[in-house]
Amino acid sequence: MRVSELSRRSGVPVGRIKFYLREGLLHGGALAAANQASYDETHVERIRLIQSLIGVGGLSVAAAARVIAAIDSELPLPEVFDIAQRTVTDERGSVGVSEEGLARISEVTAGWCAAPDNPGRLAAARIADSFARVGQTDDRGWFARYAAAALLAAEADLDEIETRPDRNARAETVVVGTVLGDALFAALRRIAQEHVTALRYGGAA
Amino acid sequence: MRVSELSRRSGVPVGRIKFYLREGLLHGGALAAANQASYDETHVERIRLIQSLIGVGGLSVAAAARVIAAIDSELPLPEVFDIAQRTVTDERGSVGVSEEGLARISEVTAGWCAAPDNPGRLAAARIADSFARVGQTDDRGWFARYAAAALLAAEADLDEIETRPDRNARAETVVVGTVLGDALFAALRRIAQEHVTALRYGGAA
Repeated sequence: MRVSELSRRSGVPVGRIKFYLREGLLHGGALAAANQASYDETHVERIRLIQSLIGVGGLSVAAAARVIAAIDSELPLPEVFDIAQRTVTDERGSVGVSEEGLARISEVTAGWCAAPDNPGRLAAARIADSFARVGQTDDRGWFARYAAAALLAAEADLDEIETRPDRNARAETVVVGTVLGDALFAALRRIAQEHVTALRYGGAA
Repeated sequence: MRVSELSRRSGVPVGRIKFYLREGLLHGGALAAANQASYDETHVERIRLIQSLIGVGGLSVAAAARVIAAIDSELPLPEVFDIAQRTVTDERGSVGVSEEGLARISEVTAGWCAAPDNPGRLAAARIADSFARVGQTDDRGWFARYAAAALLAAEADLDEIETRPDRNARAETVVVGTVLGDALFAALRRIAQEHVTALRYGGAA
Protein backbone atom coordinates (compact mmCIF):
# COMPACT_ATOMS: atom_id res chain seq x y z
CA MET A 1 0.00 0.00 0.00
CA ARG A 2 1.03 3.61 -0.48
CA VAL A 3 1.79 5.94 2.41
CA SER A 4 -1.65 7.58 2.05
CA GLU A 5 -3.31 4.19 2.55
CA LEU A 6 -0.95 3.43 5.46
CA SER A 7 -2.05 6.73 7.00
CA ARG A 8 -5.71 5.85 6.55
CA ARG A 9 -5.27 2.33 7.97
CA SER A 10 -3.27 3.45 11.01
CA GLY A 11 -5.07 6.73 11.67
CA VAL A 12 -1.72 8.55 11.77
CA PRO A 13 -1.10 11.57 9.48
CA VAL A 14 1.36 11.12 6.59
CA GLY A 15 3.67 13.76 8.04
CA ARG A 16 4.03 11.85 11.27
CA ILE A 17 4.63 8.56 9.41
CA LYS A 18 7.48 10.26 7.51
CA PHE A 19 8.84 11.56 10.81
CA TYR A 20 8.80 8.00 12.23
CA LEU A 21 10.64 6.80 9.09
CA ARG A 22 13.29 9.53 9.41
CA GLU A 23 13.79 8.86 13.13
CA GLY A 24 14.26 5.14 12.49
CA LEU A 25 11.20 4.06 14.50
CA LEU A 26 9.55 2.67 11.39
CA HIS A 27 11.29 0.43 8.81
CA GLY A 28 11.24 1.62 5.20
CA GLY A 29 8.81 0.21 2.63
CA ALA A 30 9.77 -1.87 -0.42
CA LEU A 31 10.64 0.19 -3.49
CA ALA A 32 7.63 -0.38 -5.74
CA ALA A 33 8.48 2.14 -8.46
CA ALA A 34 10.90 5.01 -8.93
CA ASN A 35 10.64 7.17 -5.83
CA GLN A 36 7.65 5.25 -4.48
CA ALA A 37 7.66 2.93 -1.48
CA SER A 38 5.16 0.20 -0.77
CA TYR A 39 4.07 -0.59 2.78
CA ASP A 40 2.45 -3.69 4.26
CA GLU A 41 0.81 -5.02 7.44
CA THR A 42 4.12 -4.94 9.33
CA HIS A 43 4.08 -1.16 8.95
CA VAL A 44 0.50 -0.88 10.24
CA GLU A 45 1.41 -2.99 13.26
CA ARG A 46 4.60 -1.08 13.95
CA ILE A 47 2.81 2.27 13.84
CA ARG A 48 0.28 0.96 16.38
CA LEU A 49 3.15 -0.09 18.62
CA ILE A 50 4.84 3.31 18.31
CA GLN A 51 1.57 5.10 19.09
CA SER A 52 1.06 2.94 22.19
CA LEU A 53 4.59 3.48 23.49
CA ILE A 54 4.51 7.25 22.96
CA GLY A 55 0.82 8.15 23.33
CA VAL A 56 -0.17 5.85 26.18
CA GLY A 57 3.18 4.81 27.64
CA GLY A 58 4.50 8.38 27.64
CA LEU A 59 7.88 7.54 26.08
CA SER A 60 9.83 10.18 24.18
CA VAL A 61 10.58 9.53 20.50
CA ALA A 62 14.21 8.73 21.38
CA ALA A 63 13.13 6.29 24.11
CA ALA A 64 10.64 4.61 21.76
CA ALA A 65 13.40 4.27 19.14
CA ARG A 66 15.64 2.61 21.74
CA VAL A 67 13.14 -0.08 22.77
CA ILE A 68 12.07 -0.71 19.17
CA ALA A 69 15.72 -1.27 18.22
CA ALA A 70 15.89 -3.80 21.07
CA ILE A 71 12.84 -5.65 19.67
CA ASP A 72 14.38 -5.74 16.19
CA SER A 73 17.80 -6.83 17.46
CA GLU A 74 18.81 -10.41 18.14
CA LEU A 75 19.51 -9.72 21.80
CA PRO A 76 18.34 -12.39 24.26
CA LEU A 77 15.22 -11.54 26.29
CA PRO A 78 17.00 -10.70 29.58
CA GLU A 79 18.87 -7.94 27.74
CA VAL A 80 15.71 -6.67 26.08
CA PHE A 81 14.19 -6.50 29.59
CA ASP A 82 17.22 -4.59 30.81
CA ILE A 83 16.95 -2.02 27.98
CA ALA A 84 13.18 -1.63 28.46
CA GLN A 85 13.58 -1.21 32.22
CA ARG A 86 16.32 1.37 31.92
CA THR A 87 14.25 3.27 29.37
CA VAL A 88 11.25 3.66 31.69
CA THR A 89 13.08 4.05 35.00
CA ASP A 90 14.12 7.34 36.48
CA GLU A 91 17.86 6.88 36.04
CA ARG A 92 19.39 9.28 38.50
CA GLY A 93 21.78 6.57 39.63
CA SER A 94 22.78 6.30 43.25
CA VAL A 95 23.21 10.03 43.92
CA GLY A 96 21.42 10.88 47.15
CA VAL A 97 20.29 7.33 47.87
CA SER A 98 20.99 6.32 51.48
CA GLU A 99 22.45 3.07 52.76
CA GLU A 100 19.34 2.70 54.90
CA GLY A 101 17.10 2.94 51.84
CA LEU A 102 19.13 0.32 49.98
CA ALA A 103 19.12 -1.92 53.04
CA ARG A 104 15.33 -1.70 53.34
CA ILE A 105 14.88 -2.69 49.71
CA SER A 106 17.38 -5.54 50.06
CA GLU A 107 15.40 -6.72 53.06
CA VAL A 108 12.01 -6.79 51.31
CA THR A 109 13.50 -8.47 48.22
CA ALA A 110 15.67 -10.92 50.17
CA GLY A 111 16.39 -14.08 48.18
CA TRP A 112 15.62 -12.44 44.84
CA CYS A 113 18.21 -12.86 42.16
CA ALA A 114 18.91 -9.35 40.83
CA ALA A 115 22.09 -7.44 40.01
CA PRO A 116 23.18 -4.61 42.35
CA ASP A 117 22.69 -2.17 39.47
CA ASN A 118 19.13 -3.25 38.66
CA PRO A 119 17.46 0.06 37.77
CA GLY A 120 14.52 -0.70 40.06
CA ARG A 121 16.74 -1.18 43.10
CA LEU A 122 18.06 2.37 43.20
CA ALA A 123 14.67 3.80 42.29
CA ALA A 124 12.98 1.80 45.07
CA ALA A 125 15.64 2.85 47.59
CA ARG A 126 15.14 6.49 46.64
CA ILE A 127 11.40 6.14 47.25
CA ALA A 128 12.02 4.34 50.54
CA ASP A 129 14.17 7.32 51.57
CA SER A 130 11.35 9.64 50.61
CA PHE A 131 8.83 7.67 52.70
CA ALA A 132 11.26 7.78 55.63
CA ARG A 133 11.72 11.55 55.34
CA VAL A 134 7.99 12.06 55.77
CA GLY A 135 7.94 9.81 58.81
CA GLN A 136 6.76 6.63 57.06
CA THR A 137 9.35 4.19 58.28
CA ASP A 138 7.50 1.03 57.19
CA ASP A 139 7.91 -1.04 60.29
CA ARG A 140 4.65 -2.89 59.65
CA GLY A 141 5.39 -4.70 56.40
CA TRP A 142 3.93 -2.23 53.88
CA PHE A 143 6.93 -2.51 51.55
CA ALA A 144 7.21 -6.28 51.95
CA ARG A 145 3.58 -6.66 50.86
CA TYR A 146 4.27 -4.43 47.84
CA ALA A 147 7.21 -6.67 47.00
CA ALA A 148 4.97 -9.75 47.20
CA ALA A 149 2.46 -8.06 44.86
CA ALA A 150 5.27 -7.07 42.48
CA LEU A 151 6.44 -10.69 42.35
CA LEU A 152 2.94 -11.82 41.33
CA ALA A 153 2.90 -9.21 38.56
CA ALA A 154 6.37 -10.21 37.34
CA GLU A 155 5.37 -13.88 37.22
CA ALA A 156 2.28 -12.94 35.22
CA ASP A 157 4.52 -10.91 32.87
CA LEU A 158 6.87 -13.82 32.24
CA ASP A 159 4.03 -16.33 31.82
CA GLU A 160 2.44 -14.05 29.23
CA ILE A 161 5.76 -13.63 27.42
CA GLU A 162 6.16 -17.41 27.19
CA THR A 163 2.83 -17.80 25.38
CA ARG A 164 4.13 -15.71 22.46
CA PRO A 165 5.16 -17.69 19.37
CA ASP A 166 8.72 -16.52 18.65
CA ARG A 167 11.64 -14.41 19.87
CA ASN A 168 10.47 -11.17 18.24
CA ALA A 169 6.91 -11.49 19.53
CA ARG A 170 8.32 -12.21 22.99
CA ALA A 171 10.63 -9.21 22.83
CA GLU A 172 7.67 -7.03 21.84
CA THR A 173 5.67 -8.29 24.82
CA VAL A 174 8.64 -7.57 27.10
CA VAL A 175 8.65 -3.97 25.88
CA VAL A 176 4.88 -3.45 25.91
CA GLY A 177 4.52 -5.09 29.33
CA THR A 178 7.33 -3.03 30.80
CA VAL A 179 6.14 0.29 29.36
CA LEU A 180 2.36 -0.11 29.79
CA GLY A 181 2.39 -2.46 32.80
CA ASP A 182 3.25 0.29 35.31
CA ALA A 183 0.26 2.37 34.22
CA LEU A 184 -2.03 -0.68 34.14
CA PHE A 185 -1.10 -1.64 37.68
CA ALA A 186 -1.40 1.95 38.95
CA ALA A 187 -4.89 2.25 37.43
CA LEU A 188 -6.02 -1.08 38.88
CA ARG A 189 -4.63 -0.09 42.29
CA ARG A 190 -6.91 2.99 42.25
CA ILE A 191 -9.98 0.81 41.65
CA ALA A 192 -8.83 -1.62 44.34
CA GLN A 193 -8.25 1.25 46.79
CA GLU A 194 -11.80 2.49 46.28
CA HIS A 195 -13.08 -1.07 46.77
CA VAL A 196 -11.12 -1.71 49.98
CA THR A 197 -11.94 1.80 51.29
CA ALA A 198 -15.65 1.23 50.64
CA LEU A 199 -15.52 -2.11 52.44
CA ARG A 200 -13.89 -0.55 55.48
CA TYR A 201 -15.27 2.98 55.69
CA GLY A 202 -18.32 2.96 53.41
CA GLY A 203 -18.33 4.66 50.00
CA ALA A 204 -17.24 8.23 49.22
CA ALA A 205 -20.00 10.83 49.37
CA MET B 1 13.07 29.37 64.48
CA ARG B 2 13.72 31.95 61.80
CA VAL B 3 13.38 31.24 58.10
CA SER B 4 17.19 30.92 57.77
CA GLU B 5 17.19 28.17 60.40
CA LEU B 6 14.18 26.51 58.70
CA SER B 7 16.17 26.55 55.47
CA ARG B 8 19.17 24.96 57.16
CA ARG B 9 17.04 22.29 58.88
CA SER B 10 15.09 21.36 55.78
CA GLY B 11 17.89 21.77 53.23
CA VAL B 12 15.63 23.96 51.10
CA PRO B 13 16.76 27.48 50.06
CA VAL B 14 15.00 30.46 51.67
CA GLY B 15 13.71 31.63 48.28
CA ARG B 16 11.93 28.35 47.71
CA ILE B 17 10.47 28.36 51.23
CA LYS B 18 9.01 31.82 50.53
CA PHE B 19 7.64 30.49 47.24
CA TYR B 20 5.93 27.62 49.10
CA LEU B 21 4.46 30.17 51.55
CA ARG B 22 3.15 32.35 48.72
CA GLU B 23 1.64 29.40 46.87
CA GLY B 24 -0.13 28.21 50.02
CA LEU B 25 1.71 24.89 50.24
CA LEU B 26 3.27 25.91 53.54
CA HIS B 27 1.37 27.44 56.47
CA GLY B 28 2.63 30.79 57.79
CA GLY B 29 4.79 31.07 60.90
CA ALA B 30 3.71 32.72 64.15
CA LEU B 31 4.41 36.45 64.31
CA ALA B 32 7.36 36.69 66.72
CA ALA B 33 8.17 40.38 66.27
CA ALA B 34 7.25 43.15 63.86
CA ASN B 35 7.74 41.75 60.35
CA GLN B 36 9.32 38.54 61.62
CA ALA B 37 7.77 35.11 61.57
CA SER B 38 8.73 32.18 63.73
CA TYR B 39 8.65 28.63 62.40
CA ASP B 40 8.51 25.27 64.19
CA GLU B 41 8.77 21.51 63.62
CA THR B 42 5.47 21.44 61.73
CA HIS B 43 7.11 23.61 59.08
CA VAL B 44 10.14 21.32 58.79
CA GLU B 45 7.84 18.32 58.38
CA ARG B 46 5.62 20.04 55.86
CA ILE B 47 8.59 21.07 53.73
CA ARG B 48 9.79 17.45 53.69
CA LEU B 49 6.34 16.37 52.54
CA ILE B 50 6.28 19.00 49.78
CA GLN B 51 9.74 17.96 48.59
CA SER B 52 8.68 14.31 48.46
CA LEU B 53 5.49 15.02 46.54
CA ILE B 54 7.20 17.28 44.00
CA GLY B 55 10.76 15.95 43.84
CA VAL B 56 10.12 12.21 44.06
CA GLY B 57 6.40 11.96 43.28
CA GLY B 58 6.69 14.28 40.29
CA LEU B 59 3.66 16.43 41.19
CA SER B 60 3.38 19.99 39.92
CA VAL B 61 3.23 22.78 42.52
CA ALA B 62 -0.51 23.18 41.84
CA ALA B 63 -1.11 19.44 42.26
CA ALA B 64 0.92 19.37 45.50
CA ALA B 65 -1.13 22.32 46.79
CA ARG B 66 -4.35 20.42 46.02
CA VAL B 67 -3.41 17.26 47.95
CA ILE B 68 -1.97 19.26 50.86
CA ALA B 69 -5.26 21.19 51.11
CA ALA B 70 -7.02 17.81 51.27
CA ILE B 71 -4.76 16.71 54.16
CA ASP B 72 -5.44 19.95 56.03
CA SER B 73 -9.21 19.80 55.40
CA GLU B 74 -11.71 17.90 57.51
CA LEU B 75 -12.80 15.74 54.58
CA PRO B 76 -13.36 12.06 55.37
CA LEU B 77 -10.67 9.67 54.12
CA PRO B 78 -12.58 8.28 51.11
CA GLU B 79 -12.75 11.83 49.75
CA VAL B 80 -9.08 12.46 50.43
CA PHE B 81 -8.40 9.25 48.48
CA ASP B 82 -10.56 10.51 45.64
CA ILE B 83 -8.70 13.85 45.48
CA ALA B 84 -5.28 12.15 45.66
CA GLN B 85 -6.23 9.63 42.96
CA ARG B 86 -7.57 12.27 40.60
CA THR B 87 -4.43 14.32 41.13
CA VAL B 88 -2.10 11.54 40.05
CA THR B 89 -4.24 9.94 37.35
CA ASP B 90 -4.16 10.88 33.71
CA GLU B 91 -7.63 12.47 33.56
CA ARG B 92 -8.52 12.40 29.92
CA GLY B 93 -11.99 11.15 30.78
CA SER B 94 -13.73 8.62 28.57
CA VAL B 95 -12.72 10.15 25.23
CA GLY B 96 -11.42 7.40 22.97
CA VAL B 97 -11.99 4.60 25.48
CA SER B 98 -13.75 1.62 23.91
CA GLU B 99 -16.66 -0.39 25.32
CA GLU B 100 -14.46 -3.48 24.95
CA GLY B 101 -11.74 -1.90 27.09
CA LEU B 102 -14.23 -0.97 29.80
CA ALA B 103 -15.75 -4.46 29.67
CA ARG B 104 -12.34 -6.10 30.09
CA ILE B 105 -11.60 -3.99 33.16
CA SER B 106 -15.07 -4.67 34.61
CA GLU B 107 -14.39 -8.36 34.10
CA VAL B 108 -11.04 -8.42 35.92
CA THR B 109 -12.41 -6.29 38.78
CA ALA B 110 -15.74 -8.14 39.02
CA GLY B 111 -17.25 -7.90 42.49
CA TRP B 112 -15.20 -4.83 43.43
CA CYS B 113 -17.13 -1.94 44.86
CA ALA B 114 -16.06 1.11 42.83
CA ALA B 115 -17.96 3.98 41.21
CA PRO B 116 -18.28 4.04 37.40
CA ASP B 117 -16.25 7.27 37.38
CA ASN B 118 -13.35 5.90 39.44
CA PRO B 119 -10.32 7.56 37.79
CA GLY B 120 -8.49 4.24 37.59
CA ARG B 121 -11.29 2.56 35.64
CA LEU B 122 -11.06 4.80 32.59
CA ALA B 123 -7.26 4.85 32.75
CA ALA B 124 -7.14 1.03 32.94
CA ALA B 125 -9.61 0.70 30.05
CA ARG B 126 -7.49 3.05 27.93
CA ILE B 127 -4.42 0.90 28.61
CA ALA B 128 -6.40 -2.28 27.86
CA ASP B 129 -7.30 -0.70 24.51
CA SER B 130 -3.66 0.03 23.90
CA PHE B 131 -2.64 -3.57 24.66
CA ALA B 132 -5.37 -4.77 22.28
CA ARG B 133 -4.18 -2.48 19.49
CA VAL B 134 -0.73 -4.05 19.61
CA GLY B 135 -2.24 -7.53 19.49
CA GLN B 136 -2.12 -8.26 23.23
CA THR B 137 -5.67 -9.36 23.81
CA ASP B 138 -5.08 -10.84 27.27
CA ASP B 139 -6.92 -14.11 26.88
CA ARG B 140 -4.64 -15.84 29.36
CA GLY B 141 -5.35 -13.96 32.57
CA TRP B 142 -2.53 -11.38 32.54
CA PHE B 143 -4.83 -8.53 33.55
CA ALA B 144 -6.68 -10.60 36.13
CA ARG B 145 -3.37 -11.41 37.83
CA TYR B 146 -2.47 -7.73 37.82
CA ALA B 147 -5.83 -7.00 39.45
CA ALA B 148 -5.10 -9.60 42.15
CA ALA B 149 -1.71 -7.98 42.80
CA ALA B 150 -3.33 -4.53 42.91
CA LEU B 151 -5.81 -5.76 45.51
CA LEU B 152 -2.92 -6.97 47.71
CA ALA B 153 -1.26 -3.55 47.43
CA ALA B 154 -4.51 -1.72 48.21
CA GLU B 155 -5.09 -3.87 51.30
CA ALA B 156 -1.53 -3.11 52.44
CA ASP B 157 -2.23 0.62 51.85
CA LEU B 158 -5.37 0.58 53.98
CA ASP B 159 -3.77 -1.50 56.75
CA GLU B 160 -0.89 0.98 56.89
CA ILE B 161 -3.29 3.94 56.99
CA GLU B 162 -5.14 2.38 59.94
CA THR B 163 -1.96 2.22 62.03
CA ARG B 164 -1.67 6.02 61.94
CA PRO B 165 -2.76 7.82 65.13
CA ASP B 166 -5.30 10.37 63.95
CA ARG B 167 -7.29 11.67 60.97
CA ASN B 168 -4.61 14.07 59.76
CA ALA B 169 -1.83 11.49 59.94
CA ARG B 170 -4.08 9.05 58.09
CA ALA B 171 -4.90 11.61 55.41
CA GLU B 172 -1.17 12.27 54.96
CA THR B 173 -0.52 8.54 54.52
CA VAL B 174 -3.35 8.37 51.97
CA VAL B 175 -1.65 11.10 49.95
CA VAL B 176 1.92 9.81 50.31
CA GLY B 177 0.87 6.24 49.57
CA THR B 178 -1.11 7.28 46.50
CA VAL B 179 1.60 9.55 45.09
CA LEU B 180 4.70 7.47 45.91
CA GLY B 181 3.10 4.02 45.87
CA ASP B 182 2.94 3.81 42.06
CA ALA B 183 6.65 4.47 41.75
CA LEU B 184 7.49 2.08 44.60
CA PHE B 185 5.54 -0.73 43.00
CA ALA B 186 6.99 -0.03 39.54
CA ALA B 187 10.53 -0.13 40.94
CA LEU B 188 9.90 -3.36 42.86
CA ARG B 189 8.36 -4.91 39.74
CA ARG B 190 11.64 -4.27 37.87
CA ILE B 191 13.63 -6.13 40.53
CA ALA B 192 11.04 -8.95 40.51
CA GLN B 193 11.20 -9.15 36.71
CA GLU B 194 14.95 -9.58 36.81
CA HIS B 195 14.56 -12.24 39.49
CA VAL B 196 11.89 -14.23 37.61
CA THR B 197 13.76 -13.81 34.31
CA ALA B 198 16.96 -15.08 35.89
CA LEU B 199 15.12 -18.10 37.33
CA ARG B 200 13.67 -18.98 33.93
CA TYR B 201 16.30 -17.94 31.42
CA GLY B 202 19.47 -17.45 33.43
CA GLY B 203 20.87 -13.99 34.21
CA ALA B 204 21.50 -11.16 31.75
CA ALA B 205 24.93 -11.19 30.14
